[in-house]
Amino acid sequence: MAATIIDSPIFGNIFSTDAMRAVWSDENRTAKYVAIEKALAIVQGRLGIIPREAADEIVRNCDISKIDMDQLRAQTERIGYPILGVVSQLNALCRDKLGEYCHWGATTQDITDTATVLQIREGLELVDADLRALSATLADLARRHRDTPVAGRSNLQQAIPVTFGFKMATILAAVERHRERLAQLKPRVLVGEFGGACGTLASIEHGAMATHEGLMAELELGVPAIAWHTVRDSIAEVGTFLGLVGGTLGKISMDVKLMMQTEVGEVYEPFAHGRGSSSTMPQKRNPISSCYIHAAVSVVRQHAAALMDAMIADHERSTGPWEIEWIVLPEAFCLTAGALRQARFILDGLEVDAAKMRANIDLTNGLVMSEAVMMGLGRHIGREYAHDLVYDICREAIRLNRPLLDLLAGHPEINRHLDRAALARLCDPANYLGQSGVMVDRVLARLPIRGQS
Amino acid sequence: MAATIIDSPIFGNIFSTDAMRAVWSDENRTAKYVAIEKALAIVQGRLGIIPREAADEIVRNCDISKIDMDQLRAQTERIGYPILGVVSQLNALCRDKLGEYCHWGATTQDITDTATVLQIREGLELVDADLRALSATLADLARRHRDTPVAGRSNLQQAIPVTFGFKMATILAAVERHRERLAQLKPRVLVGEFGGACGTLASIEHGAMATHEGLMAELELGVPAIAWHTVRDSIAEVGTFLGLVGGTLGKISMDVKLMMQTEVGEVYEPFAHGRGSSSTMPQKRNPISSCYIHAAVSVVRQHAAALMDAMIADHERSTGPWEIEWIVLPEAFCLTAGALRQARFILDGLEVDAAKMRANIDLTNGLVMSEAVMMGLGRHIGREYAHDLVYDICREAIRLNRPLLDLLAGHPEINRHLDRAALARLCDPANYLGQSGVMVDRVLARLPIRGQS
Amino acid sequence: MAATIIDSPIFGNIFSTDAMRAVWSDENRTAKYVAIEKALAIVQGRLGIIPREAADEIVRNCDISKIDMDQLRAQTERIGYPILGVVSQLNALCRDKLGEYCHWGATTQDITDTATVLQIREGLELVDADLRALSATLADLARRHRDTPVAGRSNLQQAIPVTFGFKMATILAAVERHRERLAQLKPRVLVGEFGGACGTLASIEHGAMATHEGLMAELELGVPAIAWHTVRDSIAEVGTFLGLVGGTLGKISMDVKLMMQTEVGEVYEPFAHGRGSSSTMPQKRNPISSCYIHAAVSVVRQHAAALMDAMIADHERSTGPWEIEWIVLPEAFCLTAGALRQARFILDGLEVDAAKMRANIDLTNGLVMSEAVMMGLGRHIGREYAHDLVYDICREAIRLNRPLLDLLAGHPEINRHLDRAALARLCDPANYLGQSGVMVDRVLARLPIRGQS
Amino acid sequence: MAATIIDSPIFGNIFSTDAMRAVWSDENRTAKYVAIEKALAIVQGRLGIIPREAADEIVRNCDISKIDMDQLRAQTERIGYPILGVVSQLNALCRDKLGEYCHWGATTQDITDTATVLQIREGLELVDADLRALSATLADLARRHRDTPVAGRSNLQQAIPVTFGFKMATILAAVERHRERLAQLKPRVLVGEFGGACGTLASIEHGAMATHEGLMAELELGVPAIAWHTVRDSIAEVGTFLGLVGGTLGKISMDVKLMMQTEVGEVYEPFAHGRGSSSTMPQKRNPISSCYIHAAVSVVRQHAAALMDAMIADHERSTGPWEIEWIVLPEAFCLTAGALRQARFILDGLEVDAAKMRANIDLTNGLVMSEAVMMGLGRHIGREYAHDLVYDICREAIRLNRPLLDLLAGHPEINRHLDRAALARLCDPANYLGQSGVMVDRVLARLPIRGQS
Repeated sequence: MAATIIDSPIFGNIFSTDAMRAVWSDENRTAKYVAIEKALAIVQGRLGIIPREAADEIVRNCDISKIDMDQLRAQTERIGYPILGVVSQLNALCRDKLGEYCHWGATTQDITDTATVLQIREGLELVDADLRALSATLADLARRHRDTPVAGRSNLQQAIPVTFGFKMATILAAVERHRERLAQLKPRVLVGEFGGACGTLASIEHGAMATHEGLMAELELGVPAIAWHTVRDSIAEVGTFLGLVGGTLGKISMDVKLMMQTEVGEVYEPFAHGRGSSSTMPQKRNPISSCYIHAAVSVVRQHAAALMDAMIADHERSTGPWEIEWIVLPEAFCLTAGALRQARFILDGLEVDAAKMRANIDLTNGLVMSEAVMMGLGRHIGREYAHDLVYDICREAIRLNRPLLDLLAGHPEINRHLDRAALARLCDPANYLGQSGVMVDRVLARLPIRGQS
Repeated sequence: MAATIIDSPIFGNIFSTDAMRAVWSDENRTAKYVAIEKALAIVQGRLGIIPREAADEIVRNCDISKIDMDQLRAQTERIGYPILGVVSQLNALCRDKLGEYCHWGATTQDITDTATVLQIREGLELVDADLRALSATLADLARRHRDTPVAGRSNLQQAIPVTFGFKMATILAAVERHRERLAQLKPRVLVGEFGGACGTLASIEHGAMATHEGLMAELELGVPAIAWHTVRDSIAEVGTFLGLVGGTLGKISMDVKLMMQTEVGEVYEPFAHGRGSSSTMPQKRNPISSCYIHAAVSVVRQHAAALMDAMIADHERSTGPWEIEWIVLPEAFCLTAGALRQARFILDGLEVDAAKMRANIDLTNGLVMSEAVMMGLGRHIGREYAHDLVYDICREAIRLNRPLLDLLAGHPEINRHLDRAALARLCDPANYLGQSGVMVDRVLARLPIRGQS
Repeated sequence: MAATIIDSPIFGNIFSTDAMRAVWSDENRTAKYVAIEKALAIVQGRLGIIPREAADEIVRNCDISKIDMDQLRAQTERIGYPILGVVSQLNALCRDKLGEYCHWGATTQDITDTATVLQIREGLELVDADLRALSATLADLARRHRDTPVAGRSNLQQAIPVTFGFKMATILAAVERHRERLAQLKPRVLVGEFGGACGTLASIEHGAMATHEGLMAELELGVPAIAWHTVRDSIAEVGTFLGLVGGTLGKISMDVKLMMQTEVGEVYEPFAHGRGSSSTMPQKRNPISSCYIHAAVSVVRQHAAALMDAMIADHERSTGPWEIEWIVLPEAFCLTAGALRQARFILDGLEVDAAKMRANIDLTNGLVMSEAVMMGLGRHIGREYAHDLVYDICREAIRLNRPLLDLLAGHPEINRHLDRAALARLCDPANYLGQSGVMVDRVLARLPIRGQS
Repeated sequence: MAATIIDSPIFGNIFSTDAMRAVWSDENRTAKYVAIEKALAIVQGRLGIIPREAADEIVRNCDISKIDMDQLRAQTERIGYPILGVVSQLNALCRDKLGEYCHWGATTQDITDTATVLQIREGLELVDADLRALSATLADLARRHRDTPVAGRSNLQQAIPVTFGFKMATILAAVERHRERLAQLKPRVLVGEFGGACGTLASIEHGAMATHEGLMAELELGVPAIAWHTVRDSIAEVGTFLGLVGGTLGKISMDVKLMMQTEVGEVYEPFAHGRGSSSTMPQKRNPISSCYIHAAVSVVRQHAAALMDAMIADHERSTGPWEIEWIVLPEAFCLTAGALRQARFILDGLEVDAAKMRANIDLTNGLVMSEAVMMGLGRHIGREYAHDLVYDICREAIRLNRPLLDLLAGHPEINRHLDRAALARLCDPANYLGQSGVMVDRVLARLPIRGQS
């Protein structure tokens, strides 16, 4: 019986994914604990810090399937943290008290933090895969619609035409920046923790640093220069990264929602029978996935702030701030995964109505071409004067509900410079797409070569 | 397999409670849907809006145990919302297509919002019960320790003595304000929603307003003046209320943490064997519950911000903002319930070490009494001059590590006004508790009479 | 030279107002300090706690124009707080060291908090005035457009018609709830602080509680039961109130932005020459005020979260959390004032294009009336069957781009029940406004009577 | 008359710095506008896009001292944005209408965004300088106190000894990570914007991309692949970076506050006469700078969330989200600058009381050495058994208030393995500092070589 929407069997697949939930499950977290205790025993056995026999026995029993999860729950409620429960169970599994060498020199938080980092690694791999897929889809849309005119909108007003591929390429550029960010933060974040009670490894008399390096090597994690039990910038950075990714997904969602409006109708989320329909309004085609993205990323950005709050940790092992991460980090990943999935769903099957895009440009009787006209006229009568003249003619076109072209062609100050054919060319959206295509090409050219990324 | 800490079998009872999770469970939410559809059928049958036979048949089948939750999950994933799935299942349960009169005139959000309000009502009842219990415990602590001196601290420096009962009474006053807030917001919040597609009840030809009133009466909810599908101040208000309650719990947690410090040791969370112990540091007595409170309320305040973001809803039924509430509201309640439980646990069994409190006051060689001395001297030599003189003597006491009393008694400008006995009285913390007790009494006197609240 | 947008001479009147900035100015804050010291001297002189001569001398000098602000700045930078500087200046102004009786028994935070409460009172009065004005304007719009059809929109899709007055009335109901909240929180918030070093008034030997009551009476503030130096729920509550008001303004802004879209064009922010125009796109009519509202309220809701963070105060006088309020509270008020002003500007001069509203309803070939048709048909052929049938016919109407009415009238399963005239009535938006008008009337009827509110 | 604490003459230098305020002042922002228009004219003149004569005339007049700021304010209030006002003033300054070639092909947001990036560059330089200074100070503290024992604390309980240098080095490592982040984000963020109305540079017929590159070269900014008017990840990233830096400063502040407590007294903020003193408590030594840091960074992390909200931009030029940045970005920089300054002040003059640190370790009768004892004993009697035994003896030591060493030396199960001298060595903090020094050395060794960084 789940109380959160993320774990709800009814809603869970809408707001998250099975794969990401699995990363943050009790089972996976506990499996990571066991894997780390195992790696520690291997390394300490190898270094002679604990008896080889003890190491072998511990390793033999470090198997998540041997952990009694019900017992662990009871232990956790009593103690407040699950690690001691896991160690105690492992200890009980080992013959001849050899299990007492388990968890040697470690502290609860060493195991918890390192497990979290291993989960973050898995979580970021899922995010990375989604970003790569999103990038590919956006690249494809940008390429296919490199020259498909659509009204560019400023302050929700049609401004000048752009291309739909240009629109997609601006977002693609952001996705690629996110991938760069991800690559840069990984070496800072994917670093284990092993420091004992206060980070100094005091409880290991000999071979402390060798254990430190060995453990990280065994887990394929980076080696920290020093303990980071209460220095949490890297964890918070993961949260801000997810928040930034969410911001871009929110931008996608916003544009799709707006373009799906009844009055706009330029793109549609993929159709699936019954999906997005209402119990009372059969004609509707709702931007369902966009809704879910909007909601998820709104929460993730607040999670990012909470993770920065978690940085205000006291002394060597903090009193409350750390636990903020326990609540927030899994959710930030789960919601981001859900939003990424919804974004991929939208873009993979996006219906693009190029004809409607063109029709919308024509909606304003050509007013959307006023800048083109102004610039064209500016060469003949000065830009500022042209601006003022066209400004007045546009208001006149609105008042009379007549095509801009007609009014331009009929205006004596204009038609002495440009005839109707020339003015018609100025008013053709396809002639005023500027560097849309060039910029699309530039973004595409900067993409990492497929298969190597 | 839960991904969130709230739903985690391992951690769930630390960060939330079974009772609150039950309120926000799929089961309870769906049960509320069914209860509302039932109430609607009862009212519309009574009013003759749907055939009495249909109403009876629907009512007979409105039983949460008849809902197939697996099917509902599949329906929800396909459609994006669960209501249509519930209605369709109810419809299928009814004989002779009588189920087609189910959900008559309603829209998805009517049922969802009203269910949420019913859940909020249950959730607020749990919060209220905890606030009442907390109030009683704080009142008891305030009463018992009305005259127990403890160092009052300003900027984490000992300033002047206060009493521990005074400390508790300041928080008690806040808890009572929260209860007042709760009583005031209930009539705004515990209001149902029934408006059809866009809130106008257009789909009910006759008896729309009668259905509206009848349905709310049946559910014992307030009747809204008008639809609030996209006017969400009341829901956000619930979030801010929980955030404010959390702030007070965070204050409790902060003080307990600080007073439990090794170097302070004035109060302790209740002892339970093994609880708060560490795998490596047997001497520690950790403020475990305080940690969990700190973390939970840090997240709830960000949830409050997210719920205000959810207010930016578009038109008559919003496109994304609404779903923020789905994610955030259950979590805000669950985390608040967890924090309240931990706060009650702390305060119910709080160990108060009055002797250590007194010893700490003496820690500074009497410096903490400097204001008392300054005020007492002020009568004789002028306040500002006394201030400067005492200020200098205090620095001297620090430099020499000698009792303030000794230096005062030896100072010619002072001992000509006050002899050592008089100065000793000035330096006795018990003589400088000011209105601590009076203020405790005032707070207690304002409490609602038990049994009536 | 201002760094913030709020204090920027260039931008300040866009994001705030002179009146609200004046409330939070150094000058007004310092004037409040002086006024409180004056009231304290009056009360303590009257009670004989300080000599009457001293009281008179202090009162004579408690004049903000006598405070040297440059000196105060230097004092504040050195000490970290301005109160001691003010007291020291007052002291210097008084003859014969009588000024040493100034600030008798008070602590820095007593004066600062009480000054803040006085500023909050002034700030809330401005907010209240704006809410009242907004309420009147919304009531007027609701009344005037009680029966003006506009497309009701769900998920940004046209759903069924509502009236523009209904739309306004839903928001009006929220504004009235805000006014109720404001009335309820005032007695909790407009309460002074006077407790001395740790809130116990220990430094006043006799007449402490009498001073306490007398001071609050003099300032026309409520008397707290106990000190609240570190119990800040009331201050945070003000922040959440502003956040909730902001949410409603954000909703207004969202709808205006959407309705001003080129493709929608149903309402316009008031026109002012040059305003909202672009340097390159003469045809645009930008929703400038809506933009500013959107931005301001986004920040205010985060401020509300920061104010809840400020509640996590330590002991009797906090170490950092308090200062959060110093930063956030003035900004939250200033930005809210700016957003309220912009909202009033929009609504006071809102251009409503009823003809375009009607034209937009017709945009879908009648599809927006599908629910009406479904409900009307349901009486004859069963609701679920009617739903499925109309659903299919709507898709056909979309595919063929033909009026729904034509397809309905030509369908044998339908025209045997309803002829074209009956179907045309079903398709007329004016016949499907439901309880729009009734609900408008209910909201208007609940308004407090003008002149008494 | 400033309303914000940042611009307050009284408080401004406490919460920010003159240098950072200057970066975000109206004057500097407007100067950047002028500089960009100048650079644009230079480039377009060179490329022949505008007449050379016009370019020269524009360049001649692009001088911030020629801009009438009062007029600009009036223009901004009327139009809603200041760019058009600046261009119009420049135009008026130029002879023969040559100024009409000013701003050629640009849109308001091109200039505004590029100016913001130039301000960000200046702001980040200030931040970087502070981070470098902070790093040097922390390195110095780490080096000097490499071997100074201090109680390591976990959950605010003394756990095991560490060194104060170790404590500093953990934070130093974070500061270095921030510098790495800063270096990595600069190429993403320090990129100009030049795209015209919708980013496509449609208004420049020939030489659009050449202007684009030339302008960025002139301003020494990176060239974007494509317009980013509504793709704001880079701006939000700056906010999250400041939030992360703030988190680390908050950690410093938290530890200093705790160590300055009356009952702890291990470090002190630098003493300045009168600073941090109270009007009534002469003995206090308040952590004033730590307070201000705490408050500032609490707000900055909320600003980071607001900047992520600003990413949810619509279409090609957004309607409200953009303006969030206007409010938040200057404040986030100003508050961060203030917090950095306060942190530098604290650490540059930090008083470290090594004797008190040592005395505090001894406070617990040796209990803080229990882990050391447990580990030492573990070699002889098994770790788990040793744990349980020491655990019990510790509780006994607490009950009897006797030194742990005495009880250990008197215990038959222990003294048969280790004599009193051996036990005394186990109980000596200096023998249980683990890898504190080694880890300090590692962090120091990773520092970039001075003068090159």
